[in-house]
Amino acid sequence: MPIVDPRPCIDELRAVLPDSVLVTDEDVTLAYSRDMAMLAPSEQPAAVVHARSTDDVVAVVKAAAKYGVGVHPRGAGSGLAGSSNATAGSIVLSLKGMDQILEVNHQDRYARVQPGVVNLDFRTALAEHGLFYPPDPSSFDWCTLGGNLSTNAGGLCCVKYGVTTDFVMGLEVVLADGEVLRTGRRTVKGVAGYDLARVFVGAEGTLGIITEATLMLRPLPEAPATLVATFNDLYDAGAAVQQIIDAGLVPSLLEIMDQTAIRAVDDLHRMELDRSAKALLIAQSDSGGARAEREMDGIEKAARSCGTTELHRTEDVDEGNMLLFARRQALPALEALKGGSLVDDVAVPRSRMADFLCGCEEIGERTGTVIGTCGHAGDGNMHPTICFTPGDEAEYERAKDAFAQILDLGLSMGGTVTGEHGIGSIKMDFLAKEIGEVGLRVHRQIKNALDPQGILNPGKLFTP
Amino acid sequence: MPIVDPRPCIDELRAVLPDSVLVTDEDVTLAYSRDMAMLAPSEQPAAVVHARSTDDVVAVVKAAAKYGVGVHPRGAGSGLAGSSNATAGSIVLSLKGMDQILEVNHQDRYARVQPGVVNLDFRTALAEHGLFYPPDPSSFDWCTLGGNLSTNAGGLCCVKYGVTTDFVMGLEVVLADGEVLRTGRRTVKGVAGYDLARVFVGAEGTLGIITEATLMLRPLPEAPATLVATFNDLYDAGAAVQQIIDAGLVPSLLEIMDQTAIRAVDDLHRMELDRSAKALLIAQSDSGGARAEREMDGIEKAARSCGTTELHRTEDVDEGNMLLFARRQALPALEALKGGSLVDDVAVPRSRMADFLCGCEEIGERTGTVIGTCGHAGDGNMHPTICFTPGDEAEYERAKDAFAQILDLGLSMGGTVTGEHGIGSIKMDFLAKEIGEVGLRVHRQIKNALDPQGILNPGKLFTP
Repeated sequence: MPIVDPRPCIDELRAVLPDSVLVTDEDVTLAYSRDMAMLAPSEQPAAVVHARSTDDVVAVVKAAAKYGVGVHPRGAGSGLAGSSNATAGSIVLSLKGMDQILEVNHQDRYARVQPGVVNLDFRTALAEHGLFYPPDPSSFDWCTLGGNLSTNAGGLCCVKYGVTTDFVMGLEVVLADGEVLRTGRRTVKGVAGYDLARVFVGAEGTLGIITEATLMLRPLPEAPATLVATFNDLYDAGAAVQQIIDAGLVPSLLEIMDQTAIRAVDDLHRMELDRSAKALLIAQSDSGGARAEREMDGIEKAARSCGTTELHRTEDVDEGNMLLFARRQALPALEALKGGSLVDDVAVPRSRMADFLCGCEEIGERTGTVIGTCGHAGDGNMHPTICFTPGDEAEYERAKDAFAQILDLGLSMGGTVTGEHGIGSIKMDFLAKEIGEVGLRVHRQIKNALDPQGILNPGKLFTP
Repeated sequence: MPIVDPRPCIDELRAVLPDSVLVTDEDVTLAYSRDMAMLAPSEQPAAVVHARSTDDVVAVVKAAAKYGVGVHPRGAGSGLAGSSNATAGSIVLSLKGMDQILEVNHQDRYARVQPGVVNLDFRTALAEHGLFYPPDPSSFDWCTLGGNLSTNAGGLCCVKYGVTTDFVMGLEVVLADGEVLRTGRRTVKGVAGYDLARVFVGAEGTLGIITEATLMLRPLPEAPATLVATFNDLYDAGAAVQQIIDAGLVPSLLEIMDQTAIRAVDDLHRMELDRSAKALLIAQSDSGGARAEREMDGIEKAARSCGTTELHRTEDVDEGNMLLFARRQALPALEALKGGSLVDDVAVPRSRMADFLCGCEEIGERTGTVIGTCGHAGDGNMHPTICFTPGDEAEYERAKDAFAQILDLGLSMGGTVTGEHGIGSIKMDFLAKEIGEVGLRVHRQIKNALDPQGILNPGKLFTP
């Protein structure tokens, strides 16, 4: 996208938006120029708009369309693929202030929300109604639902409940010309026309800006029972996961950490984890009562028959949270090893998980990098994390090389280059590799149809 | 779409397709001109192609694109919205012969199938592997998976398991220019690029022709326990359904029949059903053992607290099948009342189900028609069925009027004009009503982007 002079656009917006909403202060625009993706490029936008309403979003998009200025929608900025990073002279459209839960319908089990609602705040509000919204990315305590929708976020609960798109009933979307589309439904089923809502979910803001969502809810599950098991071999852990799935058990969480991740967490938090273990599995069941006990029995049986070296079970919620804390701390702990980290996000067919983790170890050896992996074992979505020392350029280059090799390894196993973080600007070449020429062409056709000027989140997913 | 002379196109295809594949015999083309939708117009196509492979589909679409001839993909022809009905001078592309199950992957729980596989044959083959594909439209014993995908078919199991789109991991699609798109994944999770697979699912063949699908599977459930309960008031039955859902129970089937449907089945099959009952609920649990018993206890409790007049439970599979037979015979029995029927397909928010059923009764009175309703109570998807005497034009007109009034009633309750049958050619006006001007525009933009000539299944969903 050629850089357009944004000043006439911003001048026009100044006439309709107060100074508190339309901000051009350079400290602010710099602060809003990027998300949490280390690898992603970013440039300084010309303005940040703190949208208060769909009308504000419409005003911004209409002005941007008139002058050909790029618009980057943004939630909390917790993204790990640079999906909300700015281009020079663009407008960052922050939706964080649109943070109202508009309706919670208990009988029909849905909620209508604005995009700026923080995932945790939504969960907390729903719990008071005895209701539950499953998608729980690791950043759930600060990421927003709008970001979750735009990246089709997953989390720890996917093995049982699915990902964001599975809970989307309807959307309000501001299109590239400023028209407002309301699509979807409030019914459980519905097949009237194309599934437009799911075109926008996971499109990373490149097709329209989500200003409201109708989300399907579930009854609040029971307090979870928790099990932790260590293994001397990654393949033993992989076999245990396969046995759990083959037995038809549906844990509400089934996570894995490799030795590097275990040791990193133990270094940081002195949790007396077994540092000699090659893998650690954490499983939960939120089915409650006798059923949870049966599920946990099944998981324990699988772990023992695959040679677990140590196994611990608890029904105590606090103790369970403490055990889960080790998993939740894996990424920060790996980052703390050297001060910097690149978090990858590959999903492979579940049967290939152990092969993939061993492959990542080999890539670490080959590239001379430290790679620790944690991931969602139940669905094969792994987060190999490559550690590097900030300022050490040579090491950083090796880390980037390892990052790319891991993506190729995932593809070679029939996997995908992103299980839940998105393509953003860091995996554009790999999207092309994964979906091929025809796939890319269809992407461009849909993009051109809905955003012919290319003003919505330019520089993401693929080149126009 | 203007009618194009199809002869040069057919002549060109004759050079590459044998006579057994490319058929222009008028008896055959007439037989392939329409599906089961009474209301839908159809015209005689110029040819029927019995595709044997993706290559055949590519050949047909490339020739059709070259000459601007319409192509109507078709499975078994079991559709209820005219989605596969032909236009004059077009080519009907039958995919019924592409009926191979290409792969069943037990470890990663997916199967790759061709579009012509019959739903029941797929279920039977999977059962031998201990696996299960839930979507089960009423025509499951003869409809094909390709048709299920193109209409995003539901069925009786949706209340627990969801609809077709929830099980789609990947697709092979022949695009409007004959290019072959492979999209999606073999992993449980994946967010690389737009969710193209779900653009084609439910698009009723207007965006591309599905030639292969990768479908997610589940472990085979237990043999179901069954419960039947009758009520003296539709609102009592509605309250029981709401109580079941509110209690967090997840029956594998939760169906309703109104009095007209109950009596029609009893007329036809002498099942000694309670003809005085205003509503009959049928529920199943496939959880097995103690859990199924607990679920059935919960459902019984809800039915009793809402004033059921008679309740029967069984764990015997044959007896359960017999009870379910009444529900499965509801549509044929209603059709048998007068010889003809229009089957509607409205989904309303679950909380409005009883209101909707009473509204349908009122429409019957107002229009002087007999309307019986059965439906999927667990997800609010109702099938009001309007009976008429073939040949009685005045009654047929009243039936059509009632059909339309029922759709308006559904929309007025926040519902959708089709829960699972599709728009086809019979609800095009109502799609426009439901999705509005902006929604329609986005539909057209996507259609024009992927099929600029409008050759794929012309005359369906919306006007170009």
